[in-house]
Amino acid sequence: RSKNGEEPTIQFLLEMVDILTNYVKKTFDRSTKVLDFHHPHQLLEGMEGFNLELSDQPESLEQILVDCRDTLKYGVRTGHPRFFNQLSSGLDIIGLAGEWLTSTANTNMFTYEIAPVFVLMEQLTLKKMREMIGWPDGEGDGIFSPGGAISNMYSVMIARYKYFPEVKTKGMSAAPRLVLFTSEHSHYSIKKAGAALGFGTENVILLSTDERGRVIPADLEAKIIDAKQKGYVPLFVNATAGSTVYGAFDPINEIADICEKYNLWLHVDGAWGGGLLMSRKHRHKLNGTYIKLCRANSVTWNPHKMMGVPLQCSAILVREKGILAGCNSMCAGYLFQPDKQYDVTYDTGDKAIQCGRHVDIFKFWLMWKAKGTIGFEQHIDKCLDLSQYLYNKIKNREGYEMVAPKIKAMMMESGTTMVGYQPQGNKVNFFRMVVSNPAATQSDIDFLIDEIERMARDL
Amino acid sequence: RSKNGEEPTIQFLLEMVDILTNYVKKTFDRSTKVLDFHHPHQLLEGMEGFNLELSDQPESLEQILVDCRDTLKYGVRTGHPRFFNQLSSGLDIIGLAGEWLTSTANTNMFTYEIAPVFVLMEQLTLKKMREMIGWPDGEGDGIFSPGGAISNMYSVMIARYKYFPEVKTKGMSAAPRLVLFTSEHSHYSIKKAGAALGFGTENVILLSTDERGRVIPADLEAKIIDAKQKGYVPLFVNATAGSTVYGAFDPINEIADICEKYNLWLHVDGAWGGGLLMSRKHRHKLNGTYIKLCRANSVTWNPHKMMGVPLQCSAILVREKGILAGCNSMCAGYLFQPDKQYDVTYDTGDKAIQCGRHVDIFKFWLMWKAKGTIGFEQHIDKCLDLSQYLYNKIKNREGYEMVAPKIKAMMMESGTTMVGYQPQGNKVNFFRMVVSNPAATQSDIDFLIDEIERMARDL
Repeated sequence: RSKNGEEPTIQFLLEMVDILTNYVKKTFDRSTKVLDFHHPHQLLEGMEGFNLELSDQPESLEQILVDCRDTLKYGVRTGHPRFFNQLSSGLDIIGLAGEWLTSTANTNMFTYEIAPVFVLMEQLTLKKMREMIGWPDGEGDGIFSPGGAISNMYSVMIARYKYFPEVKTKGMSAAPRLVLFTSEHSHYSIKKAGAALGFGTENVILLSTDERGRVIPADLEAKIIDAKQKGYVPLFVNATAGSTVYGAFDPINEIADICEKYNLWLHVDGAWGGGLLMSRKHRHKLNGTYIKLCRANSVTWNPHKMMGVPLQCSAILVREKGILAGCNSMCAGYLFQPDKQYDVTYDTGDKAIQCGRHVDIFKFWLMWKAKGTIGFEQHIDKCLDLSQYLYNKIKNREGYEMVAPKIKAMMMESGTTMVGYQPQGNKVNFFRMVVSNPAATQSDIDFLIDEIERMARDL
Repeated sequence: RSKNGEEPTIQFLLEMVDILTNYVKKTFDRSTKVLDFHHPHQLLEGMEGFNLELSDQPESLEQILVDCRDTLKYGVRTGHPRFFNQLSSGLDIIGLAGEWLTSTANTNMFTYEIAPVFVLMEQLTLKKMREMIGWPDGEGDGIFSPGGAISNMYSVMIARYKYFPEVKTKGMSAAPRLVLFTSEHSHYSIKKAGAALGFGTENVILLSTDERGRVIPADLEAKIIDAKQKGYVPLFVNATAGSTVYGAFDPINEIADICEKYNLWLHVDGAWGGGLLMSRKHRHKLNGTYIKLCRANSVTWNPHKMMGVPLQCSAILVREKGILAGCNSMCAGYLFQPDKQYDVTYDTGDKAIQCGRHVDIFKFWLMWKAKGTIGFEQHIDKCLDLSQYLYNKIKNREGYEMVAPKIKAMMMESGTTMVGYQPQGNKVNFFRMVVSNPAATQSDIDFLIDEIERMARDL
């Protein structure tokens, strides 16, 4: 009930839809800014009457619609063709429609009882993903989780459960000093998992990389031997398929050989690069005559990154069936009653570290239906073509080593395009170009290059 | 691109909206079933042509719309006035509109750069919640997380960081044997956190409860003393405000006294009961002249439960400022550059165990704007009135101890109403009545009672 006793109605929803569809149309219009930048204090002071404060009394529905327009106005258009700032970008219309349906259904993934269709969709989709990874008949296990960091955390938990199941009941003191290995270029979530799960960040050993950001297998083996000599127990190796900054692919096969030799869990973080499995032309980076992703014990794969599925959509996939529930089940009687009238093996709650779990599957399932595997393939191929185009354009172009952080600030304030920047190792901050936005074309790449140069000249 | 090269357009979105608004209308219509139950194998075989399988080739947009209708048809109407099955229920129109906007904006909570408005809304809303908890000036910290289980996991992590910060770098072996305390009636997520974070479930000590499901303080103190005598180190106590099955409120003040005496972290899991803070009439169960929720070090509060906010919306709130980032930051250079042109203290990524984080704040903020605090209060008061009404109706009614699990199966198959059932301790499975659905009225309570009796007669 809003001010004057107004009850929001279907009419209200339709007015909201009008605001949203206008926003969508403008998002794809290159004459629209990517963002209209303001500092926190400016927004907090209330831009043109946009009041963020909450109060005891209701607002009118009319004002609610104004608030919604303002929320979009001062936000960032992550679907704009010139938005390259994050690994996730784009605004897929089918995916968006899927999200709208998901929020209308407003249910929870923990049991078949409460989400029969979504639970089955998740099961079928995970199987399809495992088939692409190359595990026989798509067998294994998996779950959609709230993002790649949590998916990676799952992989560490499952590895620990596989080799030291007693840690579940007795804690880390029941295990020797365990160490994890990951690239110095890998995502920080492996380290975060090490801290959270009780390993400690000092026991997350960073591996050296070559000039293209790939793990050097000999360094892994040397560090395993060194850890063993110190009396530690190597447990887990993370190989990255598509690193966060360089987009590098660690040599999976050489790493898998070492993992087999020393009996370690091999996880592949394909949060970014997993999407390449959809492309017959590019999947060889993960799966080919030589490289075999199926040698991994677990894989993280975020359809919300390169595949353009709306946020959030991340899967952890595991080769061994049953181990996910073994690791995480607590037998909560109030949710998972064995005397239910349906086959309760479809309930997923025992596998998750969450209880309630958001429905992340439907938008992805719907996009897959609408595009087919070949549609995702076309998108991936186009992204890699655009990357190549960018590389060719700047490789002989002058001035690209001298860009300063100040250009990033100018870019945000002008709002015409957005690209991430960050340091890596001993390098200064540099622009990290991400191509995953389905709306981007060669002209947007041209625009970006020109814009960076224009801003550099104005410094 | 779909079959025949169709590109989904705004028109497609509008057709989807038509499907969704029809669904919403029917959800509130009591002559509509709550669910149309089918077994997993029936749905997998393809009900009336509803094919869940994914394929290489795209489907037509027309077929996509049919798939969406079918998805809703075979799902569960969690917003139906006679849906009482879960702690989260209802379909708030403003909240739904908020979710639609959120998915249209399709951004990520990790930095102010990428979600300026949402980051500020989160900050203001968390402060407001902390004010209601009673921490001076609403100071402290907090974050929205993917559900109550993860919020509770945060509380354990933060407690460990507070007392044994070296665990972050050195792992659990740097700490003595730590023990956690929680009620035998508490949510299983505390035990799950114990397993995941490396404490071990054996070190999660369950506390006895009285006849109404409340922790017995003397039992807590006895178990603390016992643990210390064994050489273990008590770290953390979870008190529940609104337990999962009984809806019981643990005696916060007596527990807080014990925590102070033994220098333990006090967490209050108010995932369910936190909503009572919105009601002047009922908040005394958490905050009053005698009970002081502000004595807690951390609080979990899920607006997606009693307050009817769409899934998911859960907050972990912490009294001590800065400790959340201290516990979780890994200094990921590629996201959180100190040379950004804006005040980077607004970036939230360092506080989270996630990297990407879904925008869970907007729908809640928008509902708060539209209802005002008094709107939430009215909803809470109505829910508690309905509970009282139900209690009065059945307390002297015969036959309510003999209900058999079979009624639950009949109920799902008839699809007319939905209520959870589960065991607790040595009790057999019983119906757990949840009143949080804003659409429910006294007539729906009457219907439920009659329906249970009707089904019992048919057994």
